[in-house]
Amino acid sequence: MNPLTDAGLLSPVRAGTPVESLVSDQAWLQAMLDAEAALSRAQATLGTVPPAAAEAITRAARAEHLDPCALAVSARENANPVVALVRELTRIVAERAPDAAGYVHRGSTSQDVFDTGAMLVAARALTVVGEDLRAAAAHLAALARRHRDDPAVARTLALHAVPTTLGLRVAGWHRLVVDAEARVARLLDGGLPVSLGGAAGTLAGYLEYASDRDREDPGAHTAALVREFARETGLAAPVLPWHALRTPIADLAAVTAFTTGALGKIAVDVINLSRTEVAEVAEPGPPGRGASSAMPHKRNPVLATMIRSAALQVPALASGLTGCLLAEDERSAGAWHAEWSLLRECLRLTGGAAHTLVELAEGMTIDAARADRNLGATGSAVSAERIVAHLTPRLGRAPARRLLDRCSAVAAREGRPLDCVLAEESELRDVPAAELKALCDPAGYTGAAAALVDASLDVPGR
Amino acid sequence: MNPLTDAGLLSPVRAGTPVESLVSDQAWLQAMLDAEAALSRAQATLGTVPPAAAEAITRAARAEHLDPCALAVSARENANPVVALVRELTRIVAERAPDAAGYVHRGSTSQDVFDTGAMLVAARALTVVGEDLRAAAAHLAALARRHRDDPAVARTLALHAVPTTLGLRVAGWHRLVVDAEARVARLLDGGLPVSLGGAAGTLAGYLEYASDRDREDPGAHTAALVREFARETGLAAPVLPWHALRTPIADLAAVTAFTTGALGKIAVDVINLSRTEVAEVAEPGPPGRGASSAMPHKRNPVLATMIRSAALQVPALASGLTGCLLAEDERSAGAWHAEWSLLRECLRLTGGAAHTLVELAEGMTIDAARADRNLGATGSAVSAERIVAHLTPRLGRAPARRLLDRCSAVAAREGRPLDCVLAEESELRDVPAAELKALCDPAGYTGAAAALVDASLDVPGR
Amino acid sequence: MNPLTDAGLLSPVRAGTPVESLVSDQAWLQAMLDAEAALSRAQATLGTVPPAAAEAITRAARAEHLDPCALAVSARENANPVVALVRELTRIVAERAPDAAGYVHRGSTSQDVFDTGAMLVAARALTVVGEDLRAAAAHLAALARRHRDDPAVARTLALHAVPTTLGLRVAGWHRLVVDAEARVARLLDGGLPVSLGGAAGTLAGYLEYASDRDREDPGAHTAALVREFARETGLAAPVLPWHALRTPIADLAAVTAFTTGALGKIAVDVINLSRTEVAEVAEPGPPGRGASSAMPHKRNPVLATMIRSAALQVPALASGLTGCLLAEDERSAGAWHAEWSLLRECLRLTGGAAHTLVELAEGMTIDAARADRNLGATGSAVSAERIVAHLTPRLGRAPARRLLDRCSAVAAREGRPLDCVLAEESELRDVPAAELKALCDPAGYTGAAAALVDASLDVPGR
Amino acid sequence: MNPLTDAGLLSPVRAGTPVESLVSDQAWLQAMLDAEAALSRAQATLGTVPPAAAEAITRAARAEHLDPCALAVSARENANPVVALVRELTRIVAERAPDAAGYVHRGSTSQDVFDTGAMLVAARALTVVGEDLRAAAAHLAALARRHRDDPAVARTLALHAVPTTLGLRVAGWHRLVVDAEARVARLLDGGLPVSLGGAAGTLAGYLEYASDRDREDPGAHTAALVREFARETGLAAPVLPWHALRTPIADLAAVTAFTTGALGKIAVDVINLSRTEVAEVAEPGPPGRGASSAMPHKRNPVLATMIRSAALQVPALASGLTGCLLAEDERSAGAWHAEWSLLRECLRLTGGAAHTLVELAEGMTIDAARADRNLGATGSAVSAERIVAHLTPRLGRAPARRLLDRCSAVAAREGRPLDCVLAEESELRDVPAAELKALCDPAGYTGAAAALVDASLDVPGR
Repeated sequence: MNPLTDAGLLSPVRAGTPVESLVSDQAWLQAMLDAEAALSRAQATLGTVPPAAAEAITRAARAEHLDPCALAVSARENANPVVALVRELTRIVAERAPDAAGYVHRGSTSQDVFDTGAMLVAARALTVVGEDLRAAAAHLAALARRHRDDPAVARTLALHAVPTTLGLRVAGWHRLVVDAEARVARLLDGGLPVSLGGAAGTLAGYLEYASDRDREDPGAHTAALVREFARETGLAAPVLPWHALRTPIADLAAVTAFTTGALGKIAVDVINLSRTEVAEVAEPGPPGRGASSAMPHKRNPVLATMIRSAALQVPALASGLTGCLLAEDERSAGAWHAEWSLLRECLRLTGGAAHTLVELAEGMTIDAARADRNLGATGSAVSAERIVAHLTPRLGRAPARRLLDRCSAVAAREGRPLDCVLAEESELRDVPAAELKALCDPAGYTGAAAALVDASLDVPGR
Repeated sequence: MNPLTDAGLLSPVRAGTPVESLVSDQAWLQAMLDAEAALSRAQATLGTVPPAAAEAITRAARAEHLDPCALAVSARENANPVVALVRELTRIVAERAPDAAGYVHRGSTSQDVFDTGAMLVAARALTVVGEDLRAAAAHLAALARRHRDDPAVARTLALHAVPTTLGLRVAGWHRLVVDAEARVARLLDGGLPVSLGGAAGTLAGYLEYASDRDREDPGAHTAALVREFARETGLAAPVLPWHALRTPIADLAAVTAFTTGALGKIAVDVINLSRTEVAEVAEPGPPGRGASSAMPHKRNPVLATMIRSAALQVPALASGLTGCLLAEDERSAGAWHAEWSLLRECLRLTGGAAHTLVELAEGMTIDAARADRNLGATGSAVSAERIVAHLTPRLGRAPARRLLDRCSAVAAREGRPLDCVLAEESELRDVPAAELKALCDPAGYTGAAAALVDASLDVPGR
Repeated sequence: MNPLTDAGLLSPVRAGTPVESLVSDQAWLQAMLDAEAALSRAQATLGTVPPAAAEAITRAARAEHLDPCALAVSARENANPVVALVRELTRIVAERAPDAAGYVHRGSTSQDVFDTGAMLVAARALTVVGEDLRAAAAHLAALARRHRDDPAVARTLALHAVPTTLGLRVAGWHRLVVDAEARVARLLDGGLPVSLGGAAGTLAGYLEYASDRDREDPGAHTAALVREFARETGLAAPVLPWHALRTPIADLAAVTAFTTGALGKIAVDVINLSRTEVAEVAEPGPPGRGASSAMPHKRNPVLATMIRSAALQVPALASGLTGCLLAEDERSAGAWHAEWSLLRECLRLTGGAAHTLVELAEGMTIDAARADRNLGATGSAVSAERIVAHLTPRLGRAPARRLLDRCSAVAAREGRPLDCVLAEESELRDVPAAELKALCDPAGYTGAAAALVDASLDVPGR
Repeated sequence: MNPLTDAGLLSPVRAGTPVESLVSDQAWLQAMLDAEAALSRAQATLGTVPPAAAEAITRAARAEHLDPCALAVSARENANPVVALVRELTRIVAERAPDAAGYVHRGSTSQDVFDTGAMLVAARALTVVGEDLRAAAAHLAALARRHRDDPAVARTLALHAVPTTLGLRVAGWHRLVVDAEARVARLLDGGLPVSLGGAAGTLAGYLEYASDRDREDPGAHTAALVREFARETGLAAPVLPWHALRTPIADLAAVTAFTTGALGKIAVDVINLSRTEVAEVAEPGPPGRGASSAMPHKRNPVLATMIRSAALQVPALASGLTGCLLAEDERSAGAWHAEWSLLRECLRLTGGAAHTLVELAEGMTIDAARADRNLGATGSAVSAERIVAHLTPRLGRAPARRLLDRCSAVAAREGRPLDCVLAEESELRDVPAAELKALCDPAGYTGAAAALVDASLDVPGR
């Protein structure tokens, strides 16, 4: 049993970021203990546990009293860690408040505690993710505004296509982040329920401790218990126990996969725009960041690299989670158990990527001059679509295209501006030179880019 | 080029179901032609295309005029089929209305047409999926009501656990279906946008054909064009062009993966409950269905088998789709192209699974008597949790557990009812026999199952 | 930084098993240090590092001198932990043998050290996996021999199909294990190479320290260096540096996915055969193992559950790894980095599953009497295929089938043995009763099962 | 039922390529018919089917006699198409050779026919894949030789790193292709077995038709039958029936995922090297290929785009296949069925990618002059590692690094060659100018690149 199993060495994207400790074994343990304590308090509210016992359980339910390594190994006896956790918690309560020990885990089942703990962990992690996404969105919005009108070349299938603006490019990144944030927020708003079903989803175990009168209307008692439990934990109250109905897990898979994918798109753009030959974007460079000892001229896009490393993992992990929807019977022998590590890893990578994006979005440098030079490198060819459109009414579409092709070839061969070559064409003799010049200027062909930036920055994600 | 590339032979879950033709190459072609036609009409509304030309284009835009095989092979020239499609459509329009030909695909780009077509295909497929899910939910709701109070054994980790009811089990299936339907409906309600960005997302190409006055406020013109295009297609209007911002694709991946996963859970339950030794559920058996020539005693759970076959595929396919979020630049060289088949397959398997579920939910037989016998097979042991809870106030928890263990062993050895053995225990001498009998009756230990059924059936998914 | 990030709490399948510490951060650190030390010794052999320096480096290269948490966080500066590791190792060497410090990491690059470390970790983990697979295979072979002739019912699509033997079922499990072991062995035999390419795969950095004469034949020197490095580490010598040619990673993905999948098949069989209604197999039950506090009658198939939990994860993780083959340029910005955690998790889950299988295979109980009773439950129907085949020459195929269907219905309705009912048929009047009885006896219809067991047990996997 | 379900419109990478028709429904149907015919011939050899009947079956077993669409829909009755196929084949045989009809599918089961057919399809597809890989490897080898010594810049984390050669880069691509080819060849050499198990893996059904004497040694008869069946089909003879032991499927998943991944690496390199700003590589450009109507200056890397689109899909599809290893019982209800489409798609995408690579490898243009210019753009900085190594003996490592940093800054600021700036340093006054010049020349710092090319081209994959 080695406590240094995983200190983040293989996952720099999240090493030392806030999410890491929020989803650690220690945190998961605490969340399960929080579930046990909240359950006892909910039961106290409903009169099936003495308030003093609930208080004693709540006081005892601290992860620092337990040994995660020992619990982990004990979990092999039952294929889950809750049995040993309940045993230990009962022992600790018994030492301090002997009368309360009998009320630990009352009427409950391992899965109620584990799944409620998992939802608490997810809620805590996603809360931080949401904050980071909002922070990153704010930085990107500022960046988009700043570069609203700066021309750049749009690239499709790796090649220069037509002009765009730096602002529109960044507004696209912003849009993905707000879409991700909207999904995180939607899930935090009612999508993460407590688990309360008892041994097999009927809540029968909890009812055994209800008063005779309460048991006459079992639905009312259990609904109240679920409600109180939800209130105590801050999670949602589910319609049905969901031991084998894994909607919340699938939702978490979808949200984390989308979020890292969205951030990954930004990362691959940053990486490609950082290419030595392109150099339109540079990552923030505090001392040491991205440096290569063997290659001092490099400032590697390490933030984007780390974000991309998360984005390449989470879709696969999420497919494993979604596959676990096929949970047979009232509790699966294996599909439930397969979720745990995958879920943690999805949360952790998403949290790390979001945290890393804040740093990237805040500090990245966009080189508008270089973007302009890159745009210029392809010359007026990036405006070919426009020039043809403009000349079509005068010449017809096919002749316009042929004329442009011919002139472009001349311009390239002779290294002259396209508008000057066009001006020499007899069919265009009466077109003012200024009009031809404007027509051939890539920076004038950015369409609705600026308006799109304005329109997009204030619309929430959906 | 073989038109019999895929007639469904390898995918019985969708062979011949409605979704199959809704997502076929033919249907996809028609959807892209619908996009071209709708674009021309939207442009006519805004005055950049003559109404008569839009009408001519709309009339010509019929898939039956095109050869999908030839288009497919032509697509290798550009890595997408739209270039050849536009060429063919232009040719057809030119034959019928020469003046209109120049207005085909005006200012547009392949991806606008392809992606709008894809969203149309998705919307059409999901509409049918939604209908099938609602139909299946209705059948399951009826089934849950019918078996609301029928006792059955809940199984956890493959073993008999505690009692439940058939109604609660089916209500769980119902819940998953309504959750899936809710996600489908949410996506159909604004989540499937037209694609309109022009060559690289600035809509510059469309603006070239706007009037000079319109070009003074490019954002207003393009916003109007997007709105009209959305109206003509019935799709949503996006905030930004999304050539490389693939939120809608990720949403489709999530919804199809969840839906097939949810249906797959039902399928694995049906399969396990069909097991010869369990036999609580049987599939509907029209002549021939599920029959085995070599084994005439079998009626295979073929509907559940087919649903499960879809559920085992879609999470993996969806992970491929989500991975395509990492679309570099303004249009990816490959990530975009990798989406197409995956998306079709996700839609097709989801549609086939939903269609198959309707048949399964409508026709499945639940054998309540057999479920009761299965429950009885484990005897009072399934009520152990309850018996201990009941005796704890009288004996203390540990002694109650020991007494139960001892008496259970006696009951098993002597083949006698547990309550009779308990009645002989001196500590329980004063407990009325009827109380012991009720305590040991599994059917009396179904907790809030019935109330949960009632509560759940009318709550919509979320 | 929490050292309790991952003590195995969420992954009982590997918690505390040998593989866990073999792939921990601590172990990975040591493996990278082993790579550094081996490199210096290889260089010493070739004369580019003084032997004393290599010795000093080797002595200093101990993970216990380093702080994995600090290194993990430092790794965020460069998106990999090697830069900080080299810094720390150099510091430690400098403290003890100042002259040697300059020889640390000489001519090298982060990826050489990381990847060689990863291959060492993989080799160490797979060695243990191979041992466990061989042990499990031996147990399964013994089990297959013991139950070679015990009849059981084969189930297809969840239903009783025709007879088989317990021995053949277990021989199938054995076959999968030997196939897995063969793949592990093949990979250990030359499939795990050292990484040695220098900054970008030309080994130029290493050559800078070679003698002038050695530099005249750079290929000879680097080939010798690779060979020596391979010898020092026990790994293979690759044909080319593989910084961006990730064949070994893909091979590891394939082998771990197959191995856990193969073990997962055994697990799902054990789970289904453990079902209360089936009960042909039971897991070994040391005190506490698989016990449920709420349900004392249960002995959950926890070993199979844990194995299945691994098998549900690894294919997804492996797809992430395989996706990383798309490593652009001479070193990818992200695809390389995405491999690390995925690889560790694949190895760890495979190791845990194999270890768990040994315990399962050694201790599982197969209840031959129960299997025989289960077979009997479907009566002679499982022999229908045979009866029809037998009667066809006499009656023709279709009439034989009709006669069987009719008699089976009678037998079922009247609760009489099928052979007695058949004996009353006029067409079968001259068939001896003993022949009919034998014909209807399922236990006599196990085909070549016994011979297949014999044939299979001694054939190696492939 | 639409025969135009899938003409390749959504999958240009394989549209119209040879593999497409090799794995079509039509081809799969023919392969299953080939299996039926081969089985009857094998049985004829063993005397359980009259030779004339086997001949009649063989003659009748032609896919063109069957309607794949009707069969596909019929497959919904049994969740597999074989039942209807056998019915149709029997009908056709009966029409032509009534006596032979009773021998169709004798003693057999759907899965034997389907799986043998699948292996035939896989073998036929992989044979073509292997040929294409060998052709591509030959083109790449020639390219690597041609550019063996041409300097280029190696890029790591998207930035210029150190010099390499074009030859080494292409040799890396070649290596991946030969590794892929080796895996394909290994699988074709014994890894694709016939399926022969009868109803549940005991081959009992086949034995029923054996002579009484043959039935005395059932193992000998069935082994001979398997052997003959293998001989008739050209497939391998398996050790055990593998209805639920899916090693061959997992192997196909691994090989196709690796192959497309390997080809995908080449594709992403080609795409990145095609970038307008980089332009070291261009795709072959027959008229029309890669052209953009809106952007006449573009020649899109469409071949690489298509290959990458396959590589982004297959790992996900393969994970679905590997997940199907968890096939419960003697035949799974769903896991088997989930394999079929996934397997076809894996084969089809691999075949399309390999075919496309041949065209790419044969026709791609590598611009050595441009590569040299790109290398020069970063100046001597790419040789920093070397310069420091060279100056370290003279100055010590840290001072050498400081001096270099200082001089590099001067060189960059003043736009002068680094060697001239270095020459002015007092510590380097006695270093000959030619030595400094050589030291700073990137083209002289390609390490063992040329030797690696030579060494690698003739080594087979492994």
